Amino acid sequence: MTDEAEQVIAELIQTPAFRSAAATLEREHSRTIEEIVRLTETAAPPFQEAARGKLWLDLARANGLQELEMDAVGNVTGLRRGTGNGPLLCVAAHLDTVFPPGTAVTVRREGTKLFAPGVGDDTRSLAVLLAWMRALDAAAIRTRADILFVADVGEEGLGDLRGMRHLFQEGRYTDRIAAFITVDSPNMEQIVTGGVGSKRYRIQFTGPGGHSYGAFGLVNPLYAMADLTGRLGRFDVPVSPKTTFSASVTGGGTSINAIPNSVWTEYDLRSESAQELDRLEQRFLALVDTAVAAENAVRSTRNGPVSARAVKIGDRPAGRTPETHVLVRYAQAALAAHGFTARLGYSSTDANLPMSLGIPAIKIGSGGTGGRGHSLEEWIDVEPEASVRGMTAGLATVLAVAGLA
Amino acid sequence: MTDEAEQVIAELIQTPAFRSAAATLEREHSRTIEEIVRLTETAAPPFQEAARGKLWLDLARANGLQELEMDAVGNVTGLRRGTGNGPLLCVAAHLDTVFPPGTAVTVRREGTKLFAPGVGDDTRSLAVLLAWMRALDAAAIRTRADILFVADVGEEGLGDLRGMRHLFQEGRYTDRIAAFITVDSPNMEQIVTGGVGSKRYRIQFTGPGGHSYGAFGLVNPLYAMADLTGRLGRFDVPVSPKTTFSASVTGGGTSINAIPNSVWTEYDLRSESAQELDRLEQRFLALVDTAVAAENAVRSTRNGPVSARAVKIGDRPAGRTPETHVLVRYAQAALAAHGFTARLGYSSTDANLPMSLGIPAIKIGSGGTGGRGHSLEEWIDVEPEASVRGMTAGLATVLAVAGLA
Repeated sequence: MTDEAEQVIAELIQTPAFRSAAATLEREHSRTIEEIVRLTETAAPPFQEAARGKLWLDLARANGLQELEMDAVGNVTGLRRGTGNGPLLCVAAHLDTVFPPGTAVTVRREGTKLFAPGVGDDTRSLAVLLAWMRALDAAAIRTRADILFVADVGEEGLGDLRGMRHLFQEGRYTDRIAAFITVDSPNMEQIVTGGVGSKRYRIQFTGPGGHSYGAFGLVNPLYAMADLTGRLGRFDVPVSPKTTFSASVTGGGTSINAIPNSVWTEYDLRSESAQELDRLEQRFLALVDTAVAAENAVRSTRNGPVSARAVKIGDRPAGRTPETHVLVRYAQAALAAHGFTARLGYSSTDANLPMSLGIPAIKIGSGGTGGRGHSLEEWIDVEPEASVRGMTAGLATVLAVAGLA
Repeated sequence: MTDEAEQVIAELIQTPAFRSAAATLEREHSRTIEEIVRLTETAAPPFQEAARGKLWLDLARANGLQELEMDAVGNVTGLRRGTGNGPLLCVAAHLDTVFPPGTAVTVRREGTKLFAPGVGDDTRSLAVLLAWMRALDAAAIRTRADILFVADVGEEGLGDLRGMRHLFQEGRYTDRIAAFITVDSPNMEQIVTGGVGSKRYRIQFTGPGGHSYGAFGLVNPLYAMADLTGRLGRFDVPVSPKTTFSASVTGGGTSINAIPNSVWTEYDLRSESAQELDRLEQRFLALVDTAVAAENAVRSTRNGPVSARAVKIGDRPAGRTPETHVLVRYAQAALAAHGFTARLGYSSTDANLPMSLGIPAIKIGSGGTGGRGHSLEEWIDVEPEASVRGMTAGLATVLAVAGLA
């Protein structure tokens, strides 16, 4: 039995136009590799994506993309106009890496493997978008929908999806994007249809401080913080919808012989379910007060109490695209037609934001293989067969959604 | 009723020689102030006391002190030989301050007040030692005992009394010092006869780490650390002998979206009693294992367990000098004769080390008043009457112990 999506994909990939586009991807694969290297070696630390954004803009312009601009937050957008009879489809990859300024980003090659921080997450995808532009033009393909290509900022960590927030809530294309595909990391084996939501807090505990011996008995913010962390560690959370917590980064105090004035910990709360996430957040914030009150009850507040300030440092909305949605079905069919068995799953990506707004959105892979993302040993394999096959499956998804004119 | 110590002091301070020495302290008070300023403005951060040590050595040489040298750890020692019929008395002040390199150390004057980091703790005392040398020479005083003047290193924080350890355990004067007086900070109101002992630990917790969401359920070293800190916070310790603990400085983790690989906290344990301190240390170290085992029991160790390493970063022995010892009695009598009401007490000073070895040792003040030690607003008041009166009382103590020939 063949469903409608499989039918659409089967017909699409047999058209001479698509065959021509796929052939371009294969023929120009070494150029794609060169662009992966150039983009990777242009560092893009969190909040410092401008140099890579400018490079991608120049490369996209050389590929004939129109209406190119860098928006107020640093996203680079460019429009490939269709016949005007379809919706606006946005195809994105993110510019930023998790690596701080000064990280060595020179690409090391071993056979068909490329090693460098950020090479797979998500730099390869930026080059794949460029390859798709060339393939579409070489095959003279016109789509019904306009395709908005975006190289966006702020996907990683404390970037907190600020590129997506601007694009969907404040920018030129707000309210115009009808479907969203983000291409993120090589892995073709998963189509992300659910966005794991996260709330991130930095809890700053302060107290009067004092000499560790002379002022012994005064409240100590480190005990309040330990109490909070310990209580969080004992939380029960549902396995499904998957809901998690982590005490991740901590610091504070100035001297071994002083009760600290100030200490802090950063906590990460996540869930597949917006409702569970809200519940977890409320329980957590209530515990902050509990931990502070407990410390002020057991030690002296004669020089002042311990207090806590909760600063929200991340808020990534949860959301999902129905698994029956045509966007999901096209992606599944396109991947299957190219030999991939893709499961549907949850992750935390740029797609969270449109999902949370009810805009159909998925994440697909950029092709090839890779590993050790977010580590200095990150790598991708650009062995041509698997690399091009993945890119071709992705392009088929984009074209099925955008529609051949 | 007058006891023997009061008798000795009463006779001593009426001798023409002592009166002449005291007159010199008064006459040269402005020179002492100049030397306080010069020494204060020669920074002496922990482990970087050499510049100030060299300056003190030069000033002591200009005052005629003999056998001057800087030893292997940076202590500056010089001998004022007596007639050879008495014990070797060591009179010390410490070179180091708590302030890191780069701290502004220019002295600001307001009336008779001098403001600068370290000016009172313990730089004033270094200048007082120099003033005593001059006063003794101007009065042509010979003592029965040899007096070893020492400007020592490593008194503060992580310096961990390394100057004293070298002096008493490895250096040229090991086994020769029969009595020890450290002059530390202006306050004349307390004679320290008991050394608060301390044990300091940095506990490093490590684990497998992992993605905060993807690897949720793995052991997290931050929970083990919070457990240890929380358990320490609930310790019962005796009020007398005073015994204390503090969780003081903490840090670790790298990213909000990662279960940390490694976190650490520094803990400070103290007691007036060596026995109580040992007991506290053993309880604490046992809890490290308890906390690690608890974390490994409640979360998954499939990628490896949490473990902890305890690094001892400070070990200051406790000890005391009997309150009836002649060293204490002379100091009490000398201070009383100069209008001071000094109580006996515990503190943590260079005197801890000789006390722990059974060598009679006390801490006295350097004269004048002061405040805000260990802060950037540290100050002393060099108003001449109180300043000289304190210095004179200290010199009487030294001379009573060393004995007029």
